[in-house]
Amino acid sequence: MSEPTLLVLDADPSPRLGRLAGRVRVQYADEESLASQLPHAEVLLVWDFTSDAVRRAWPGEGPRPRWVHTPSAGVDRLLCPELIDSDTVVTNARGIFEAPIAEYVAALVLAMAKDLPGTLELQRQRRWRHREGLPVAGTRAAVVGAGPIGRTVAESLRALGVETAVVGRTARPGVHAGEDLDRLLTGADWVVCAAPLTDATRGMFDARRFALMRPSTRFINVGRGPLVDQNALVAALKERRLAGAALDVFETEPLPPDSELWDVPGLLVSPHMSGDTVGWRDRLGEQFVELFELWEAGKPLPNVVDKKRGYVPMHD
Amino acid sequence: MSEPTLLVLDADPSPRLGRLAGRVRVQYADEESLASQLPHAEVLLVWDFTSDAVRRAWPGEGPRPRWVHTPSAGVDRLLCPELIDSDTVVTNARGIFEAPIAEYVAALVLAMAKDLPGTLELQRQRRWRHREGLPVAGTRAAVVGAGPIGRTVAESLRALGVETAVVGRTARPGVHAGEDLDRLLTGADWVVCAAPLTDATRGMFDARRFALMRPSTRFINVGRGPLVDQNALVAALKERRLAGAALDVFETEPLPPDSELWDVPGLLVSPHMSGDTVGWRDRLGEQFVELFELWEAGKPLPNVVDKKRGYVPMHD
Repeated sequence: MSEPTLLVLDADPSPRLGRLAGRVRVQYADEESLASQLPHAEVLLVWDFTSDAVRRAWPGEGPRPRWVHTPSAGVDRLLCPELIDSDTVVTNARGIFEAPIAEYVAALVLAMAKDLPGTLELQRQRRWRHREGLPVAGTRAAVVGAGPIGRTVAESLRALGVETAVVGRTARPGVHAGEDLDRLLTGADWVVCAAPLTDATRGMFDARRFALMRPSTRFINVGRGPLVDQNALVAALKERRLAGAALDVFETEPLPPDSELWDVPGLLVSPHMSGDTVGWRDRLGEQFVELFELWEAGKPLPNVVDKKRGYVPMHD
Repeated sequence: MSEPTLLVLDADPSPRLGRLAGRVRVQYADEESLASQLPHAEVLLVWDFTSDAVRRAWPGEGPRPRWVHTPSAGVDRLLCPELIDSDTVVTNARGIFEAPIAEYVAALVLAMAKDLPGTLELQRQRRWRHREGLPVAGTRAAVVGAGPIGRTVAESLRALGVETAVVGRTARPGVHAGEDLDRLLTGADWVVCAAPLTDATRGMFDARRFALMRPSTRFINVGRGPLVDQNALVAALKERRLAGAALDVFETEPLPPDSELWDVPGLLVSPHMSGDTVGWRDRLGEQFVELFELWEAGKPLPNVVDKKRGYVPMHD
């Protein structure tokens, strides 16, 4: 019986696959060579998960891998109709990013409440100017996205004493239905977007929704850039209809140097790093190896994406 | 029976004492007039708690107030031997600053772990540079100061998953003795100073103790400036024997524009604001009014400072 072929859409640094030695034939592809290599692999590891090369190469000729794993939470860059309609199983990196992103959101909430950006700017100017912080305990948050990331964000905000509502597609215990979102936005001090990017969620934070928020509300996006109408957000910030915002994700990444987003008052820009803590690539590689061993043994895979919905459904 | 005289060492904005109308004669003093007014007051409210005028004026001639209240947690600016040896009762603002300071420390810990200062600097330069954050859960903190502030800081760090040891003067349940401090410093990712400034604690964070910390340790001072040998801290940061620090308090406040502290790499400077959240002055005023009503009714006062120790002892 011949070893299966694992095709890796590579990125620097490459995954450590040593444990799979002798059990798999590993081929490395880049964006250009991916299309020609796809027909010869049973498994595709989209190690360069920032690439949309799979979406572009998948519809071509020939057989396709039976399993595609992306070491990311979101699968929006990956999915195309042909992959969605195929029998190929898609898995994601559930379990790796939840806790780091929740800490990152807590960092943003606390930093904005205590005006750390203002403090750092005043320090740069060598100016001592006392200001009053905002209390965080007792404030209210709406977390949009009821997957494991949204829920872990909510837990971490609750640990800070923030009264936190989670909003998903449909109502479940502990989760508000999408119909409740507008009402929750009107009462929220913090709105955190941690939703998957799908046709149903694209552009969900638009001018109308920013208008529902209060001038004291702060908005945080750790989901995907296209969930937010960036122009509408900028307008709300400039007109002081919103107290502040922090974006970790953008329509275009990296954010171009000439983007107006870099210096909108009250807007904190970070380079898509909320989930990435020291050792994250190793953890992603280990997770893939574990999944590979299940697959090899013919066992059911965890983290299977509902391709039509565009995320891994929660079972509860 | 004549109304007692309440002398207020004033600061802008003045306390709201309207509820005491008709029950007390209120006199306002500034630093210059304090000495001449002290002999004529039963109660002194040190509303300008940043002043050391009381310490200077107290040893003068004439009778002295029987009760002195400072709307601050620390009493270090207030106490002089003559006040310590007198029968005058000193009370502080226990209960007001704990939760805000705990949130502020959590903000600093998370901001340093996620390199928010680096993110803001890169944003200013319009540069997209991905970095890896540090996890906070699972790290270790030593909180120095076992009063209500230190304990509340510890609770808030524990809520973030930080394994937190509290160090006080003597060992008690949940509190390490001062003798344990050096050992705890060697293992701490975070060292938080929330101790009262007394003869026993002045300069406790000196070159020797910074040398005990690891190059990955970050140090936070929300206590009082003189608890720290600033030069030793700067040297440790410059020689990268310490990963970072955040000072909210300084030997000299406001920190002079020409202080070298403003631009030490890895040092975050904030203007003594950790405990001050919107409405704090009102809360301090209300607390004094409540204490005054107890005093007026001849009831025991809470928050009584052990003047010899220099803080309000914990009873547990």
